[in-house]
Amino acid sequence: MTTGPLGDMCWHNGRLARIDEVRIDPTDRGFTLGDGLFETLLWTGREIRFFEDHMARLGHGASQLGLAIPFSIVELENGLVALAQASGLKPAALRLMVTRGVGPRGLKVPDTPLPNVLATIATVPTEFPAVEVRLVDIYRASGAPSARFKTLSYVDNIIALRLAQAMGADDGLMRGPDGSVACGTSANVLIRHGDQWHTPPLEDGALPGIVRGRLIRAGLVTESRIPVADLEMCQAACLTNALVGVRPIHTLNGRPLKAELGLYAGLIAALT
Amino acid sequence: MTTGPLGDMCWHNGRLARIDEVRIDPTDRGFTLGDGLFETLLWTGREIRFFEDHMARLGHGASQLGLAIPFSIVELENGLVALAQASGLKPAALRLMVTRGVGPRGLKVPDTPLPNVLATIATVPTEFPAVEVRLVDIYRASGAPSARFKTLSYVDNIIALRLAQAMGADDGLMRGPDGSVACGTSANVLIRHGDQWHTPPLEDGALPGIVRGRLIRAGLVTESRIPVADLEMCQAACLTNALVGVRPIHTLNGRPLKAELGLYAGLIAALT
Repeated sequence: MTTGPLGDMCWHNGRLARIDEVRIDPTDRGFTLGDGLFETLLWTGREIRFFEDHMARLGHGASQLGLAIPFSIVELENGLVALAQASGLKPAALRLMVTRGVGPRGLKVPDTPLPNVLATIATVPTEFPAVEVRLVDIYRASGAPSARFKTLSYVDNIIALRLAQAMGADDGLMRGPDGSVACGTSANVLIRHGDQWHTPPLEDGALPGIVRGRLIRAGLVTESRIPVADLEMCQAACLTNALVGVRPIHTLNGRPLKAELGLYAGLIAALT
Repeated sequence: MTTGPLGDMCWHNGRLARIDEVRIDPTDRGFTLGDGLFETLLWTGREIRFFEDHMARLGHGASQLGLAIPFSIVELENGLVALAQASGLKPAALRLMVTRGVGPRGLKVPDTPLPNVLATIATVPTEFPAVEVRLVDIYRASGAPSARFKTLSYVDNIIALRLAQAMGADDGLMRGPDGSVACGTSANVLIRHGDQWHTPPLEDGALPGIVRGRLIRAGLVTESRIPVADLEMCQAACLTNALVGVRPIHTLNGRPLKAELGLYAGLIAALT
């Protein structure tokens, strides 16, 4: 829902390269098994927004997956900034991915894996219009690495987006283990009840999002279970991720919602 | 747990090729998003076991993912057999994977995707010794494409295997949405209670396995919920998949189990 053309250049294992000259090995476990992590970061033209937050999440995911990223945070930052500057794109979405690297047949992690690190960049719009969102019947397990970390195993999100688009919506909301609302397919969801913004807790399948975390820490959003019935009653709702920040939902499950910008002003202000 | 060296050759989009000469594009959605499917098939040296069953499952998954495989079943069979014969390996594991192909940034499926089809081959042992298995705290959502189909989004299984191996076991059992037993990391699980073999139903997170399906249709295995407590009481247990057939579990959560081959004879006979 925020796609732009991909730049010609990428940053691959420590050097800038043309994408069409990069070869991914057919035995790379990112390709064969979705075995890796990624982060999508906003390049403003001057800086990478929330860079430390992204690195903290990536580092946490890597430790849980047992993935040793062969670059320091400074090296990653320098690589991403070099890519962004070489591309000339702004604003732009940087996508940093780390796979386990090549491996033999089977799931077992190689004894001495050599992770594969690739960053690409793509244009993003400067403004994101409000969206129509629908709940779909795709469930997320809370006790699964694919739900707790930003792994390359993203097929559930892809199918959730397809189902929502097939119903004419722009994005889908997925469900947690007990059927309550979890998150969007590439964003978290906030709903407004009374005078308070709510977002599902991680145990209901929400991804530990960068913007979500900042808004919770700022005291502007409360973690609360969101039963499906709440979608019929909430006053307003929005999606949040590191690329778009806060994106109003104008229609939720076919019901028009208030989308006055004033409703979101406090959230947006907390992110700048 | 059944890894052997990978052959030098592969079958890529309709032709035999050396693996080291195949380039996967860095924007292939198999690599970036785990967006695709795979099947692991046993080449006996004369034939591909259960070929029709594998094609039925692949076709079902492809229709659910909206993935148009650009080869007929006959073309896939001819390609796999050509690869197997060219490799000289037997018995061997064929891995056929189909990704969505290249795409721009984001989850949205391209309007006219060009799927990427790759088959590799690796040696497998002629016999598989009994294994030690432990339950791990990795949960599978039943209403998720990644649990219902053999997608490339396999990170949960990888982590489940890692956790089990860290406890000294050979394989792990994952849990379904309510915590009951779902399946192994690359196999389904059967447990023996009284005079009957049981396996978890699909809604508890089991993968629709080829061998599992054949044994159920043969009337030898019943689909029943397997609460964790049953693991403490069952008389015997085994793993099943298309590569190993039936593999006895000699130790389950630290408890030795009967592994007399006679217990499994009926199951094995039904597969030949």
